Amino acid sequence: MDRYGKIDDRLLGELKAAVGENNVFTDTAKLAEYSHDEVPANSYDREYIAEALVFPENTEQVSAVVKLAAQHNIPVTCRGAGTGLSGGAVPAFGGVILCFEKMNRIIELDEANFTITVETGVITDEIVNLAREHGLLYAGDPCSGDKSQIGGNIAENAGGNKVVKYGATGAQLLALEAVLADGTVTWFGGKRRKDVTGFDFVHLLAGSEGTLAIITKAVLKLLPLPKYSADLLAEFADADSAMALVPKIIAEAGLIPVSIEFMDRNSLSFVSKYLKREVPACSAGAALIIQLEGSDAATLEKDCKKTAETAVKYGAQKIRTAKTDAEKENLWTARKSIADSIAKLCENYVKEDLVVPADKVPALLLSIEKACAKYGLESSVYGHAGDGNMHCTLIAGNKKNWKDLLHQAQEEIYADTKKFGGTLSGEHGIGLKRREYIKYFLDDAQIELIKRVKLAFDPQNILNPGKIVEWE
Amino acid sequence: MDRYGKIDDRLLGELKAAVGENNVFTDTAKLAEYSHDEVPANSYDREYIAEALVFPENTEQVSAVVKLAAQHNIPVTCRGAGTGLSGGAVPAFGGVILCFEKMNRIIELDEANFTITVETGVITDEIVNLAREHGLLYAGDPCSGDKSQIGGNIAENAGGNKVVKYGATGAQLLALEAVLADGTVTWFGGKRRKDVTGFDFVHLLAGSEGTLAIITKAVLKLLPLPKYSADLLAEFADADSAMALVPKIIAEAGLIPVSIEFMDRNSLSFVSKYLKREVPACSAGAALIIQLEGSDAATLEKDCKKTAETAVKYGAQKIRTAKTDAEKENLWTARKSIADSIAKLCENYVKEDLVVPADKVPALLLSIEKACAKYGLESSVYGHAGDGNMHCTLIAGNKKNWKDLLHQAQEEIYADTKKFGGTLSGEHGIGLKRREYIKYFLDDAQIELIKRVKLAFDPQNILNPGKIVEWE
Repeated sequence: MDRYGKIDDRLLGELKAAVGENNVFTDTAKLAEYSHDEVPANSYDREYIAEALVFPENTEQVSAVVKLAAQHNIPVTCRGAGTGLSGGAVPAFGGVILCFEKMNRIIELDEANFTITVETGVITDEIVNLAREHGLLYAGDPCSGDKSQIGGNIAENAGGNKVVKYGATGAQLLALEAVLADGTVTWFGGKRRKDVTGFDFVHLLAGSEGTLAIITKAVLKLLPLPKYSADLLAEFADADSAMALVPKIIAEAGLIPVSIEFMDRNSLSFVSKYLKREVPACSAGAALIIQLEGSDAATLEKDCKKTAETAVKYGAQKIRTAKTDAEKENLWTARKSIADSIAKLCENYVKEDLVVPADKVPALLLSIEKACAKYGLESSVYGHAGDGNMHCTLIAGNKKNWKDLLHQAQEEIYADTKKFGGTLSGEHGIGLKRREYIKYFLDDAQIELIKRVKLAFDPQNILNPGKIVEWE
Repeated sequence: MDRYGKIDDRLLGELKAAVGENNVFTDTAKLAEYSHDEVPANSYDREYIAEALVFPENTEQVSAVVKLAAQHNIPVTCRGAGTGLSGGAVPAFGGVILCFEKMNRIIELDEANFTITVETGVITDEIVNLAREHGLLYAGDPCSGDKSQIGGNIAENAGGNKVVKYGATGAQLLALEAVLADGTVTWFGGKRRKDVTGFDFVHLLAGSEGTLAIITKAVLKLLPLPKYSADLLAEFADADSAMALVPKIIAEAGLIPVSIEFMDRNSLSFVSKYLKREVPACSAGAALIIQLEGSDAATLEKDCKKTAETAVKYGAQKIRTAKTDAEKENLWTARKSIADSIAKLCENYVKEDLVVPADKVPALLLSIEKACAKYGLESSVYGHAGDGNMHCTLIAGNKKNWKDLLHQAQEEIYADTKKFGGTLSGEHGIGLKRREYIKYFLDDAQIELIKRVKLAFDPQNILNPGKIVEWE
């Protein structure tokens, strides 16, 4: 930690001069409140805490803060709404946390070019809602969309429920305004659907977890809003038959659903308990939610019929379509409340974000089951079946040696994941939480390239240091 | 040029030992044949020629050649089928050209995961055709697909006619096997629809023009093959009214066409002359080809009707649908033969690849017209209207000072392009041809980052040196 400077009174004064007295905080309670994301504090061996919180109001202020940080060799960690799931916003070496709550303006919705330009602190659903009012779709859809900020979505390349059809947040990006590690402000990309003028730094920044540059504005793609959508719920005897259906929907029904979401028996049971009601499919062995959409009601109905027939053909025991808004809401609330239900009902757990080729999900589920049996763990497995991204949560409960048990189970499951052609994180990121495991999945040459590219952007290593890979 | 080593007899022997005697060539005629792409030779001030051509048969051989090159400080330039349009495959500092004609195997078509794994030298259309035989779509579609190699498509992030709906080549990529600058072989990405495990090097390599690493294999996405497609031809009095329709199709008809291709009056006239027949719309002021597709015949017919109505509402003078395969072929042959017609009929021209926000295309066309009038040039403007990517060709003919005239016109058009929020290249790349102009569009910080990232991957600067930016 000695390699970085400390924030002394003089620097604090300079920070206040740069962004205004009211936008800098150093009181302990507020520092603690902003020094974590949604990863449980007991996941780490020690506490991490920032030395100062800075709430810039515009790009110029971000630039001024970064210039000061570079001059004094102080780490700068960006934080959106703190909904992250990898400790990406945790200040691993102290320093400044930049909070973007005050950079929350939607700058322009351009109907002629199907783009929306926003500041980094805009809440995701505000973008979705404004686009919808104009008959347009913003297709980024993290489960935390009601709280998360777009800058955080981009920095983590957040996924969510619409990736099967539309891709993750990175796929929605056209341009980024960014502050570089020396405080320089620049725009990568533009309102252009194609660009090979130099390297594609726009999409390199997506998912780089604030380690390469600080995102201050973004230009996002919009699409025509599909007029109609339908949610199907398919129930299965077990997880294997649910997962076997996934490629068949695309291949036999010949269509790409918006979502194919998976919930196993335990997940359905946790969420029923948490919501204090029987959620749809709660007695099934496993369930899939399949969302379809279209611009034409008759075609959508045909697509639903085809999908339902395919589901029955491949072993669905029951299939129904949510007809009313209330039924749809009911379905999605169940799906989206699984994480909360575990956080509320369980202790000492670790939430995984593994991703494997879609046809390897059944093998992954078996591996999870085996490891849990071996180490006496509970599990809840749910997630984005359409793209092979499973949020398996391993739950140790109140066992004394819970950290060891989780760790041993993780090691075995990771070894299998790698064997299946999978990897460590599909959409939550590496951050602080997973950096010790990245070497199980990337080879030495790739880890070396990550370090070299990081230092090419940030030679002092002051932008969110200590993330993604281990430096020591 | 002194900074690189020369290929002497000893190194030649080592290259032959690495890849086999029959896979190394040094005779002048063959060197000349492989030392260019489709950029006319008279675009450059001098001739560029390789010292040796090497035809590796597998990744191990590529690795062996790169290790030798690194050891002897010899430049290595990769070449696909030579269909490039930016001089990307031109050996700017001599050295070795790697030719991938012998690495042309399709390794696997994986129907469960909707992927195809190919060697770098496979011809694009072979991938399209094999996928189609399995009821699947490979959505990459450069105009040169019948000749170009997939590795070249990826290195240039080739666009083409389907970008509006499916994105360019990079959007089809899931994973790459690459040989790094020191000869290390590694796989970036995997058969995974999502991945935030480390930086996104897969998509950084797309469009990096062989300057960061050598692509040896790729895993590409496949999609369900749309069963039906329709091609509409809309004729307009002038280019402005044609372009005004583009956003309306998406906004009012509420659908995303596969293609929206633009041809101006001169382009239609050149191609009629070249094909020695009146091509469709040849007497129009401008024309759009709009391709729609769907999985349902009735829906597609509705979509066609909506699109035609929208076209007429916004000023199309005539609209017709190509009904038979012959009619479709007729339409697309005209569009795809424009570049050839200019190459055949004109002398001393430069083909641009400018891209602007779609609503700025009319302003760009005006800028081109103005510059051509000022400098006594002819022009042909055609291209991908749906994504604002215009292939404007400026034609000087047999004027003595043609290079100066083209250069002056370019400078003025580039200044306007930048003002419109556009950039230098949408899909052809920078290569050797455009590197002197990139500084008009990227700022110093971005050019510096390109250099630093290049050196992070390739510290000796031996992989396709002299491209994208000027180093001196």
